Amino acid sequence: MALTIDFNLATRAQVGPAGLERTDFAGLSASLTQALDALDHAHERGALQFMRLPQDTAAAQAAIVLGKQLARDFDELVVLGIGGSSLGGKALFAALSHPLHNLVTRKQRSGGTRLFFPDNSDPSTFAALLDHLDLSRTAFAAITKSGGTAETWAQLLEIHRRLGAEAAKRQIVAITDPTKGALRSVAQEHGWATLPVPPAVGGRFSVLTAVGTLPLAAAGVDVAGILAGAGAMAERCRTRSLEQNPAAMLAAALFLFDTRRQRPLHVLMPYADALRETGDWFVQLWAESLGKKKGTGFVGPTPLRAVGATDQHSILQLLMEGPQDKVTVFIAAAAPRVDLTIPKGFESQPDVRYLGGHTMHGLLSAEQQATSAALAAAGRPSLTIRIPKLDPFSLGELIMLWEVATGIAGTLYGIDPYDQPGVEAGKRYTCGLLGRPGYEEAKAELDARPKPSPDWIL
Amino acid sequence: MALTIDFNLATRAQVGPAGLERTDFAGLSASLTQALDALDHAHERGALQFMRLPQDTAAAQAAIVLGKQLARDFDELVVLGIGGSSLGGKALFAALSHPLHNLVTRKQRSGGTRLFFPDNSDPSTFAALLDHLDLSRTAFAAITKSGGTAETWAQLLEIHRRLGAEAAKRQIVAITDPTKGALRSVAQEHGWATLPVPPAVGGRFSVLTAVGTLPLAAAGVDVAGILAGAGAMAERCRTRSLEQNPAAMLAAALFLFDTRRQRPLHVLMPYADALRETGDWFVQLWAESLGKKKGTGFVGPTPLRAVGATDQHSILQLLMEGPQDKVTVFIAAAAPRVDLTIPKGFESQPDVRYLGGHTMHGLLSAEQQATSAALAAAGRPSLTIRIPKLDPFSLGELIMLWEVATGIAGTLYGIDPYDQPGVEAGKRYTCGLLGRPGYEEAKAELDARPKPSPDWIL
Repeated sequence: MALTIDFNLATRAQVGPAGLERTDFAGLSASLTQALDALDHAHERGALQFMRLPQDTAAAQAAIVLGKQLARDFDELVVLGIGGSSLGGKALFAALSHPLHNLVTRKQRSGGTRLFFPDNSDPSTFAALLDHLDLSRTAFAAITKSGGTAETWAQLLEIHRRLGAEAAKRQIVAITDPTKGALRSVAQEHGWATLPVPPAVGGRFSVLTAVGTLPLAAAGVDVAGILAGAGAMAERCRTRSLEQNPAAMLAAALFLFDTRRQRPLHVLMPYADALRETGDWFVQLWAESLGKKKGTGFVGPTPLRAVGATDQHSILQLLMEGPQDKVTVFIAAAAPRVDLTIPKGFESQPDVRYLGGHTMHGLLSAEQQATSAALAAAGRPSLTIRIPKLDPFSLGELIMLWEVATGIAGTLYGIDPYDQPGVEAGKRYTCGLLGRPGYEEAKAELDARPKPSPDWIL
Repeated sequence: MALTIDFNLATRAQVGPAGLERTDFAGLSASLTQALDALDHAHERGALQFMRLPQDTAAAQAAIVLGKQLARDFDELVVLGIGGSSLGGKALFAALSHPLHNLVTRKQRSGGTRLFFPDNSDPSTFAALLDHLDLSRTAFAAITKSGGTAETWAQLLEIHRRLGAEAAKRQIVAITDPTKGALRSVAQEHGWATLPVPPAVGGRFSVLTAVGTLPLAAAGVDVAGILAGAGAMAERCRTRSLEQNPAAMLAAALFLFDTRRQRPLHVLMPYADALRETGDWFVQLWAESLGKKKGTGFVGPTPLRAVGATDQHSILQLLMEGPQDKVTVFIAAAAPRVDLTIPKGFESQPDVRYLGGHTMHGLLSAEQQATSAALAAAGRPSLTIRIPKLDPFSLGELIMLWEVATGIAGTLYGIDPYDQPGVEAGKRYTCGLLGRPGYEEAKAELDARPKPSPDWIL
């Protein structure tokens, strides 16, 4: 069984004027075809682009082999990476490993290493992690596509100091551009193991390269299963029959909600704890790809992530009765990995009695169904992505679905979904503040800013 | 030293037309005074309301004593609670305990229990947790203010079945309304220990009651320090001199950005891993309190949470170059709890050389300063909450600041910030789907909804 997307609760027939009709989509068909052509042309130019990663079995095999070797030689793997070098691996690790992976026995974690993602330049968490680990039993995956990410180098310098140059050769794997950048140079010079990130694959689209597959393989996750699901979805998303193309329909629906229904807030709400980090991955993908300057204006939806049923007790009130500016994308799994039957008990209490005999997954599913119906009854649209089960194949489908949808949405919005020019200003200022040679102008710009007034501080 | 709020980068002098001026605030002074009066009147009616919780030393002491007793008698504490019964405790636990609390030795976790918050009706995570724990060494805090929360009862029924009635008396603590509701009845009938949640304190304002203080005390967190900070902030927030009142100014600024500057998206972005869950707590507080029906319309800002520097590699592109609909609230700590000096190394690489010799906290601080300056230079406003250090006192201040600001914002928006009527429809439908007696009408409503069309599923 494959992943499906149910658009019913996004339609006019179900939610009234906020909903979409076939005619809304019809107006987009030329753009959608152009978007699919653009994805194909990227292949044809010979660059290995994200949709083709599932076919790059040699690269996958190299990462899996090295990951399994790390699992044999070490107890812990620490990923030094941030943003696109961390979020995808973190998401699939959370989705597919034991919920208490780092606490349970090696057997319970399928023979894998423990896995940590200290994805910040925060010394409190980083120092605590290093003090806890037995460094002689720990491998490090240093991941930066460009090779020059400040946060990652700050961590790597400290790790290198603690390990020493000889141990570093055995314990550090560098995952970076195949030919360029500081990490590639240093790794080659110092004899560290390396794996490449294909140059045409952007950081936030890189989870199916060694960026994600090496840590996942080390932790015992079934990488081949993920790639099989991703490959199947990539195939489904190549059809020009738009009504059969899940990524085209998903991108089109969300684009229409933003630009034709004044609903620029896109809430991803899986009903599964395991998909919490997948929400964080989605937020980066959608926000960084589509939030762009366009001419003299600015475009792009704002992604939010929630988790059901937990966040029924948090943002649901706002989704139900706040401004009419949101569309929710639910993710529901038909079958749980594990289920529990809620025991009967305390039957004199009406608030308790009705629960006994249902399963916990049944309660969770009823809550998802009830929440989407309540939104619909209030005229508020949603989509539901259904997967048969939270397994590697389904997660591969889900990842590829959103990546292709993002590429297509870029064409619909008329922007480049693969760049991120807006983050450069902050990087320049950081370098200026740290006194990096060549960034004197940035520092001067900062110094020339209006002085803060003490009257506005309390 | 106390928490401060710096409004400079939210002003017209710094960011141009998107910024605020004194005159914007002046128009709100009558409403702000009315809001502060309303908070005071709540006290005067005799109900113990959230601003007075720091003074309720007897309640705090009872929770601390019982929490410490649990720490003596058990290795693990599991909180059965969802939404307001979980988010606050989770936030302060993450902010103030060892970053790897559940992995390290008891000594490293200040003598506290390990602490788990399975805050969902997701059987995969709940079953995995129960299978991992030695139940004879585990205490359970069942927390539901109303006493009737479905997700919590589903968990509690399973726990009670596994423990048996006798062990339950020693191992379950019920935290609920002092007189009403299913949990109060069951706890009294079956001899479970109980602690009260003051009836006038809403769930999302309850972290400084036993809802938060019992689990925190058990885990070894300094609850008295948190309450001292919260009490100090509550005092600061009582002044009618609005320019000196941090909660009034915070609420007013964010209200003005939403309603006068078309910036309804409020992004809380602490530069500290430890405050990630504080962001989740803020999202519930702000969204559920302020997202409301008002007459025939709908009001309320949409909160987002991000973490710096991590999310500079995620939503920053959207903040910098996406639509002009956001204001960011940074949180920055002046001093780290622990710091690391970045070693020098690989000095032939310009992307690496400038980092050595700085501290990691220095890098993080420069990134926060650079990011807020880059936003300001692009005409995009932000506020910065500064705390001396991530310690119990500062967290207490921060919690109380946002709670009071939420109460005040409710008055500015002209809605009741303490209710959540929008979540009832979903609850009714869930009960209908589960066949709960009395909910036949909800089920009939669901059955009467338009049938989904297979044409809209792919």
